[in-house]
Amino acid sequence: MEIMKAITIKPGVKNSIEMRDAPDPARGDDNVKVKVLRVGLCGTDADIYAGEYGEAPPGDDYLILGHENFGVVEETNGNSGLRRGDYVVSTVRRPCGKCLNCQQGEMDFCSSGDYTERGIKGRHGFMAEYYTESPEYLIHIPPALRDVAVLLEPTSIVEKGIDHIYLIQRRISWQPKRALVLGAGPVGLLAAAVLRVRGLETFVAGREPSTDLRAQVAKGLQASYLSVDGMAITDLPGKTGPLDIVIEATGVSSVVFGAMQILAPNGILCLLSVTGGTGVRPEPTDRINQDLVLGNNVVFGSVNANPRHFRKGVEDFQSLEKSYPGVLQKLITSRLPWHDYGQWFGQKRTGIKTTLEISTG
Amino acid sequence: MEIMKAITIKPGVKNSIEMRDAPDPARGDDNVKVKVLRVGLCGTDADIYAGEYGEAPPGDDYLILGHENFGVVEETNGNSGLRRGDYVVSTVRRPCGKCLNCQQGEMDFCSSGDYTERGIKGRHGFMAEYYTESPEYLIHIPPALRDVAVLLEPTSIVEKGIDHIYLIQRRISWQPKRALVLGAGPVGLLAAAVLRVRGLETFVAGREPSTDLRAQVAKGLQASYLSVDGMAITDLPGKTGPLDIVIEATGVSSVVFGAMQILAPNGILCLLSVTGGTGVRPEPTDRINQDLVLGNNVVFGSVNANPRHFRKGVEDFQSLEKSYPGVLQKLITSRLPWHDYGQWFGQKRTGIKTTLEISTG
Repeated sequence: MEIMKAITIKPGVKNSIEMRDAPDPARGDDNVKVKVLRVGLCGTDADIYAGEYGEAPPGDDYLILGHENFGVVEETNGNSGLRRGDYVVSTVRRPCGKCLNCQQGEMDFCSSGDYTERGIKGRHGFMAEYYTESPEYLIHIPPALRDVAVLLEPTSIVEKGIDHIYLIQRRISWQPKRALVLGAGPVGLLAAAVLRVRGLETFVAGREPSTDLRAQVAKGLQASYLSVDGMAITDLPGKTGPLDIVIEATGVSSVVFGAMQILAPNGILCLLSVTGGTGVRPEPTDRINQDLVLGNNVVFGSVNANPRHFRKGVEDFQSLEKSYPGVLQKLITSRLPWHDYGQWFGQKRTGIKTTLEISTG
Repeated sequence: MEIMKAITIKPGVKNSIEMRDAPDPARGDDNVKVKVLRVGLCGTDADIYAGEYGEAPPGDDYLILGHENFGVVEETNGNSGLRRGDYVVSTVRRPCGKCLNCQQGEMDFCSSGDYTERGIKGRHGFMAEYYTESPEYLIHIPPALRDVAVLLEPTSIVEKGIDHIYLIQRRISWQPKRALVLGAGPVGLLAAAVLRVRGLETFVAGREPSTDLRAQVAKGLQASYLSVDGMAITDLPGKTGPLDIVIEATGVSSVVFGAMQILAPNGILCLLSVTGGTGVRPEPTDRINQDLVLGNNVVFGSVNANPRHFRKGVEDFQSLEKSYPGVLQKLITSRLPWHDYGQWFGQKRTGIKTTLEISTG
């Protein structure tokens, strides 16, 4: 067995990180061997290092760290669509194989929770000299992007969020003009970049002063940087104008809940970050943010109705009268002659629905 | 001018309700005159009575109350599609005429805020002997539904919410099985009824004991009633199983925030109620609920990404390098030889993105 160097941790053991010898994976007939050129570091790596997260592959007591990756094809067969020397980035999550979503290639919506993730959960990552992978999970990178391709994995998180903003809003006529990104870390700045490609007027709010490199990156994207240290989130629309899209990339729950109050009518808030680990004991509000993000959950408010919803109601009433005859009628628990309106207004209300009977026709 | 009886309030004046004479509206060439048979009463009527809400039509100093309505056509011309004696329910909101949504007939997503609403905001309602209306806003009711049609307006609120649940979730493979309704008032029970028509296993959670009429209505719909007085919302999934859909119909913000923590993976929470008025000074959390509901806002969490989001990222990187050359590169603020991993793990992190350089190829 060949040996390679790798950076590993023992899952659940704080500060267990080490560079060690690990088996150099042999390429199987159906996969590709990739030489790793570079990995990016992110908060999840820090959480795994802190022992808060991470799961070793079956049979191993260690996990090779690293999920933001960039490499070059070392060996492949003729069917992979890739050639030796091609640059690639590997995706991270692998399907559970049993839930509806994973079966349809939507492992990012795995509903069993039994997905695996390279460098995070049940599969080795990319802080190693080599890895092997099925070609379906390798993204071919044009050589012109070799210096920035290590940013592709965090960008994919942003791309999913923005994709789903538009997928969700197909439900209405919607022409978003203005977007705000909360947080100027890598995810926040990459979100600003993608929003600019989509043609939106873009604001980035961060704690750092306007002289910070983050502000320069925003400026380079023709986005506006707002230094918000000590400012209430709810004051932001006064500086930006109505916000059709807000992307939350801080994971700080007070920011998350502030963000729920700054949307324009028909606006949408995308939560991309969970509250960082490293010993922080989450507040109940942090837990709500975690639940929404990790569950791919949607919360939406709905007011009023369109004429088509009245027509659908007529149709459903007919179905209800057929399936559950007389039940709808039971909702009307009191029928007052309309001159007796004073028996309802200003009184303690009982029953389910009261009507005022105005005429018998 | 003919005179009719109507129940009116002076907007903003508590307890100003009275039955009074008002002009009997004359039918114009293009509209329909309807004799009102019955109106339903709801929390919005109580809020308007309490002076917290409500706006008179231009030129009047009073507002005819009532928006949940049922009536019979009294006079019409040949072009309305309706005949004298037809039962009708009128929709409530009228378009602002200037925003994109109203122009496309989606006045329930009015983004200017300048819509009007019969019986609520700038237009007289239905607590009167007669009203006139353009036929496009009148819903024809089959005679078999004459006893329950007064429930159609609150049902339309529910139909919109459930319609948008499914419109939003077209974004993924999604086969919901189980739904929970929080609140057993008219909106909650009507939501349970519509969910049952959609074939979902349905639970209704209310404060009332299981002997209450509300529980009987739920049972009549083959839905399960859960009496939850004193129970934590977050304990509910233990009694129901994984919840794909939750519909919030209490307007109590502690319930709203509890509901954000009980969704199954890929689950969706629809907020239908705002915190009732009658002198209650809203908490910040109430205000979040109000903002989300009245703004038709969406909040969603997003985790991980699909391979197509990596491919979209490659495409966007190419656009970014063209439009903002060199900016992406600026996000990588530190490139460490991988043997120096100890300079990042467990250290205070600075800069934007750090990479570990593993090989030069």
